Amino acid sequence: MRLRHNPKADIAVENSEYVEQDPKSRKGHWNEVFGNDNPIHIEIGMGKGHFLMTLASQNSDINYVGIERVPTVLYKALKKQEELKLKNLVLMAFNADEINEVFGPEEVERIYLNFSDPWPKDRHAQRRLTSERFLKLYESFLKKDGIIEFKTDNRNLFDYSVETAGLSGWKTRDITYDLHNSPYAEGNIMTEYEKKFSEQGVPINKVVIYR
Amino acid sequence: MRLRHNPKADIAVENSEYVEQDPKSRKGHWNEVFGNDNPIHIEIGMGKGHFLMTLASQNSDINYVGIERVPTVLYKALKKQEELKLKNLVLMAFNADEINEVFGPEEVERIYLNFSDPWPKDRHAQRRLTSERFLKLYESFLKKDGIIEFKTDNRNLFDYSVETAGLSGWKTRDITYDLHNSPYAEGNIMTEYEKKFSEQGVPINKVVIYR
Repeated sequence: MRLRHNPKADIAVENSEYVEQDPKSRKGHWNEVFGNDNPIHIEIGMGKGHFLMTLASQNSDINYVGIERVPTVLYKALKKQEELKLKNLVLMAFNADEINEVFGPEEVERIYLNFSDPWPKDRHAQRRLTSERFLKLYESFLKKDGIIEFKTDNRNLFDYSVETAGLSGWKTRDITYDLHNSPYAEGNIMTEYEKKFSEQGVPINKVVIYR
Repeated sequence: MRLRHNPKADIAVENSEYVEQDPKSRKGHWNEVFGNDNPIHIEIGMGKGHFLMTLASQNSDINYVGIERVPTVLYKALKKQEELKLKNLVLMAFNADEINEVFGPEEVERIYLNFSDPWPKDRHAQRRLTSERFLKLYESFLKKDGIIEFKTDNRNLFDYSVETAGLSGWKTRDITYDLHNSPYAEGNIMTEYEKKFSEQGVPINKVVIYR
């Protein structure tokens, strides 16, 4: 998401105890960060954080890492975390391009991708978080029986993602082109965008991608 | 496909040695029909038969059953079979509604559905060969590791099929929205319709559905 750059936010993010300041140093040792061996679920592009923080507050036996490239955006999530102080949540201002340097083999059980940037131009396809390039990165740290849960309102991005997953050796299941009117709606947590879009009648697509 | 009704075709189909006249009596005993225990692949809605008969001529170690509801259409396939005399192919004029009475548990390894009738009206959805109703029928005779290969030019039917498969407890893989420009094109055998459509530039969708 786009927000006006906020230097105060950058400083807050860079100095917060809730934000992991040296993510690469944690690779292979995330259980030490959380102080337990609970499974780790991550969201890449957590935005303002409502989705992941709802999950974290509901599931104390799962550890969550929220990743957001733009500090000004992550700051919104940080403000919430400063109130909630969720022990099973760590935030991170980090570019997904190098996410394979942050998590080690089999270290992550689930990846959430919600309303990722569609990068509609063909020449930018490899920037999409569901591109073959990124799927290869995920493969390096996702557990063998781990899954990617992907939601988007963008049908072109969705079709691309489903097709790319198959071409990259991944499988797909639980595909829906109208999540909120499907049986998969049960237990669904809406992101800020999802709530807005669905109030406008835009159908939400969802797929589970796995190996 | 629609053809002008041809009474001569009906009579030929009803009297041909290449057409199984009492399919239900074969349930659980198809290996006796073929005289061997080779795997059985079927096509529901075989049309003029080019697709399945090409496969049958290429794969002598697989048995094929071609099913077509309309005798006048099946007659076109029969004419070819009278020339080719493929030993690993049996034809059948039969309505798929009762296909679970034709094959026994685990008797079929693969089901081909090519350019099936889209039945576009919602109230006819259960007539689609990829509806939950039909998937249940297939489940009764498809091997546990068997697959359904489904091709269509109709994007609405395709999306419906992918979504319905998931909702019915099946999985999907190798999804493509442009088969002929995908890596899955290798070895693809075109049906009569597929050839015509693709010459017109219509993209072909394909998915593998499995349990």
